[in-house]
Amino acid sequence: MISSLSNPKVKQIVQWHGSAARRREAEIFLTEGFKMFEEAPEEAVREVYVTAEALEKIGQRPLLREKLERIGRETVTEEVFRKMSDTQTPQGILCVVERPAFRLEQLLDAPAPLFVVLEDLQDPGNLGTIVRTGEGAGVTGIIMSDKTVDIYNPKTIRATMGSIYRVPFVYAQDLPGAVRRMREKGISVYAARLDGETYYDSFCFQKGTAFLIGNEGRGLSGELTSCAESLLKIPMEGHVESLNAAVSAALLMYEAHRQRS
Amino acid sequence: MISSLSNPKVKQIVQWHGSAARRREAEIFLTEGFKMFEEAPEEAVREVYVTAEALEKIGQRPLLREKLERIGRETVTEEVFRKMSDTQTPQGILCVVERPAFRLEQLLDAPAPLFVVLEDLQDPGNLGTIVRTGEGAGVTGIIMSDKTVDIYNPKTIRATMGSIYRVPFVYAQDLPGAVRRMREKGISVYAARLDGETYYDSFCFQKGTAFLIGNEGRGLSGELTSCAESLLKIPMEGHVESLNAAVSAALLMYEAHRQRS
Repeated sequence: MISSLSNPKVKQIVQWHGSAARRREAEIFLTEGFKMFEEAPEEAVREVYVTAEALEKIGQRPLLREKLERIGRETVTEEVFRKMSDTQTPQGILCVVERPAFRLEQLLDAPAPLFVVLEDLQDPGNLGTIVRTGEGAGVTGIIMSDKTVDIYNPKTIRATMGSIYRVPFVYAQDLPGAVRRMREKGISVYAARLDGETYYDSFCFQKGTAFLIGNEGRGLSGELTSCAESLLKIPMEGHVESLNAAVSAALLMYEAHRQRS
Repeated sequence: MISSLSNPKVKQIVQWHGSAARRREAEIFLTEGFKMFEEAPEEAVREVYVTAEALEKIGQRPLLREKLERIGRETVTEEVFRKMSDTQTPQGILCVVERPAFRLEQLLDAPAPLFVVLEDLQDPGNLGTIVRTGEGAGVTGIIMSDKTVDIYNPKTIRATMGSIYRVPFVYAQDLPGAVRRMREKGISVYAARLDGETYYDSFCFQKGTAFLIGNEGRGLSGELTSCAESLLKIPMEGHVESLNAAVSAALLMYEAHRQRS
């Protein structure tokens, strides 16, 4: 039982929670709560920290209990857990999980792939919602500019509701280059723009498809837009100037899903 | 120029920001920022507070300047404005706006109306996003249980991006009663449920339509579900158990929009 706030493992978690760069260096991310433990791929979980209370709850769920026995765990006091936790009402279980490594070229080879390409998205909740909706709509992967918010931001992870473990993604240093690579592979690339002239449901998304979604405030840059084959827009009634980025992405991904079903 | 933090008007705004009940009593809501000032219906704006810096910016935009001249304003110091503001990076303009009053019966009489009915939604950002997307999709109104988060919560207002001024809404004390009233009026009512058996795009939403959306964690209650004519579901790939409430609402509203265009 770890009861000291100055225990090196505790200090390490606190440091990781405070620094995206340190988490990246260590090639890990942190997840909290029962659901995130339940859905974590077993082979990727490096460490689990639990409070006595959380341990008792897990004891009542045989599948979770066996998973925890196989992985192993450190028990910590409530006080220590509060220090380690990023949430206001901690559930008492935290996992250190190894980061997966996806390569763009591999994803491009999927049959009739479906991509969402995000340019400089800033809101962690939006990104998490896009990952969650993306899994639901069956996307092949999410490709992001390196200025997009950290997908391992605790708020993003929470908003994914577990999809973080399952949706492939790539941060591309050269996003226009990645989009050009898609087009070389025969993937149709659509830029979601307010000045698009054709409604999104007029296109056929049954073959390889990628949707470009821009930053919440600025929209898509001219440079990235110029890499697209077509501009599309989502119809908007009233005085609405734009939709939330996660909503736009959801409408496009689910239109592709609808056409492919 | 108001420069004292103990000025009664300043104290009043601070009190309103801190209490949803006091704002309700006064039949007002508070909005911040240039965009929210620009989009505010002129006849509904009771007071405007601006900093000298914001006033200068407005001076460069003739339409905004004239609007502000017609409404009138109080100039306040930066320090006072920071005290009055609910945001971390205040833009220096705050409006006190009269609440509109919508009646369910009036909304029900619209031709082929489109409603979103929210049961106990808790996340202010989700509600704001639904209002914004609802305007975009052309909904007639949003009907909410009285346990749904306050639509005049500052986070909700920000997330609406101005749609708060334009989308009709009603808090119903008796939500099942309101839904029964819809059905009496010939409106088809669909409950969005994970255990629905028919996909959402199999229904026809061209006539009067209402979608029931449940609380983020619990989904729709049995009682409200029993008031619906049909259950519908949104298809989900992978291991996704549910979608974000604002995303679900967006997919349904835009499917109705698509069918009606």
